Amino acid sequence: MKDASEPYLLTPGPLTTSAETKSAMLKDWGSWDSDFNLLTADIRQQLLAMANADPETFVCVPMQGSGTFAVEATLASVTTQTEPTLVLSNGAYGKRAADILRYLGRDVQVMDKGDYLPPLPEEVDAWLTAHPEIASVVLIHCETSSGILNPLEDIARVVERHGKRFIVDAMSSFGGVPLYLDQIPLDALVSSANKCIEGVPGFGFVIIRRRVLEASAGQSHSLSLDLHAQWDYMERTGQWRFTPPTHSVVAFHAALEQHRAEGGVAARFARYRQNRDVLVNGMRHLGFQTLLEDNWLSPIITTFLSPDDTNFDFKTFYAELKARGFVIYPGKLTEVESFRIGHIGQVDSRVMQVLLEAVEHSLNIMQVSCTRPATFPQPA
Amino acid sequence: MKDASEPYLLTPGPLTTSAETKSAMLKDWGSWDSDFNLLTADIRQQLLAMANADPETFVCVPMQGSGTFAVEATLASVTTQTEPTLVLSNGAYGKRAADILRYLGRDVQVMDKGDYLPPLPEEVDAWLTAHPEIASVVLIHCETSSGILNPLEDIARVVERHGKRFIVDAMSSFGGVPLYLDQIPLDALVSSANKCIEGVPGFGFVIIRRRVLEASAGQSHSLSLDLHAQWDYMERTGQWRFTPPTHSVVAFHAALEQHRAEGGVAARFARYRQNRDVLVNGMRHLGFQTLLEDNWLSPIITTFLSPDDTNFDFKTFYAELKARGFVIYPGKLTEVESFRIGHIGQVDSRVMQVLLEAVEHSLNIMQVSCTRPATFPQPA
Repeated sequence: MKDASEPYLLTPGPLTTSAETKSAMLKDWGSWDSDFNLLTADIRQQLLAMANADPETFVCVPMQGSGTFAVEATLASVTTQTEPTLVLSNGAYGKRAADILRYLGRDVQVMDKGDYLPPLPEEVDAWLTAHPEIASVVLIHCETSSGILNPLEDIARVVERHGKRFIVDAMSSFGGVPLYLDQIPLDALVSSANKCIEGVPGFGFVIIRRRVLEASAGQSHSLSLDLHAQWDYMERTGQWRFTPPTHSVVAFHAALEQHRAEGGVAARFARYRQNRDVLVNGMRHLGFQTLLEDNWLSPIITTFLSPDDTNFDFKTFYAELKARGFVIYPGKLTEVESFRIGHIGQVDSRVMQVLLEAVEHSLNIMQVSCTRPATFPQPA
Repeated sequence: MKDASEPYLLTPGPLTTSAETKSAMLKDWGSWDSDFNLLTADIRQQLLAMANADPETFVCVPMQGSGTFAVEATLASVTTQTEPTLVLSNGAYGKRAADILRYLGRDVQVMDKGDYLPPLPEEVDAWLTAHPEIASVVLIHCETSSGILNPLEDIARVVERHGKRFIVDAMSSFGGVPLYLDQIPLDALVSSANKCIEGVPGFGFVIIRRRVLEASAGQSHSLSLDLHAQWDYMERTGQWRFTPPTHSVVAFHAALEQHRAEGGVAARFARYRQNRDVLVNGMRHLGFQTLLEDNWLSPIITTFLSPDDTNFDFKTFYAELKARGFVIYPGKLTEVESFRIGHIGQVDSRVMQVLLEAVEHSLNIMQVSCTRPATFPQPA
């Protein structure tokens, strides 16, 4: 078991990575050197393969910075100044996508489902019917602010039927939840190194339809975030256009190898679901209530409602759990008190069991006797 | 001596870092956790101190991505849509600053000194006198495309006398060349983790005049690169606004400690100069010629003119040196053939001596008998 000096990170990322992944960073790499270029090329190819993306139709472009940098680069490439974009928002990342579009001066419409309710395919259908001027639709696959896994596939079919471009923020799901482009029609998906592939932070990546990216040449608002220029330069030289986070890239390559060795997306999906099931069952056994009903729970992170007990205080709970080797995450709901526990990264169901003991122990120390929440939000 | 599997990186960065710095990455950190926030705060404070920057007048803001991302964020904050900016350009990074300003839709004037000639204070004075409409001036301190150290202090005095804002790209010099804000008047300087402080790549940082940053609120073209928003969020929460490259940040903190232990900027400046002197003297002894005369040589990287010998070929030379444990850098001059050798990072004069033996050995293998260049560019 880990201690407080290196706790398990039960968050939506950065998360606990393997010793193997971190050890890959013990070497320095020249970003101009062919050895490093080979790694970059291999990563791009492996990510396309992980998505079942036909390399004739799709390309993979990494981008320095946090995942948000890659989302911004993608939104700037796929949407245009003249055509409206619809954001399906049910949390912080939907709001952020809309914010980015406003920075870009785009005409943005927001279907706002609040803190945690899923955008439903029939609602999207109705919106697109009422607003035929919309050219692009943005969906967050797993909205970690509540932990919900939004109904991606059904929404993708609706968007396709209306003939709109479809951009998916798959930041926290890609590699850990099945998302195959030979089954789900979309134009761009965005994810990052430090999520389900279990690398360390430093860059994100985009899998994007080649003809959509080609059409975006010269349209970026930003030199650094110009996705087309990054792709074009990489195709011509094998190098990143500007200095890459070399150590993060090499760690990611090691993480990809472990992803494959574990059994790919299917195996990771199974492990994460098992983590979640052990956690959710155990927390319910302790009297906690999840924000969402079972069919909306993601295998990534779960929101629990805070107990209606004056002895419960999130900061104390956090510190008690950290002292026992676990870093959890604050809630992000506007209406009710909550906290979140992530179940991705190098953790398994045994870790979840030890966490549950730590939760029980912490509640005893805090003298929390009631773990039921004060209010029950509208069920999702 | 290193071998081909982990050569010394004699480039402008990423460069060879210490084992201690890399080992700091063997732990995962939660970006929301207070332990990590303390590291971030300490880094910001140490960088201000390294620049002799009064914390009442200046603030330090880190930014995810390569150094160019931080330059773009800075240019977007300091320059405005309505007032022209003058870029003093003598190489790739001056060109890049002008490119960024064009992406931003700024009115940009370029004093183009070509590949390697320095912008002289009297030329800047004349330009600003002829163009009183200019509001901001941009200078690259060490332009690594030639290796020149531009006359920062004298130009700063001219810009101050004209009452213009002054932005310095000190990417490859900060921490390794004295640059003290109690002596040199400027409004913003930009550098990055993987240069003279000898961290690993993943983020840059800006030291910027507080009132200039405050005045830029709401003016950024980009959500991700909004320097004011990054600063404001960090001041309020202690956290980075979006996921930081945690491992790079922790490695940088370790690198800062080593920088201090070595004796700070003065000691590092002395080591880098000694590296350069050993290298340049040794290369001249072998018959090579530097692009620049001695008074313009930086302690960062030196450009050598390629030999006028048909047996000399850069790719072969590069491969021979790499096989002996040294990665060098291609030239970037448009007029004449050249190559570059960096002398920053965890290298000392003994490494330079071994490099010189490797150069001599490689020339013998390539059967290069003449090391003098074909053409001699106009002296700088």
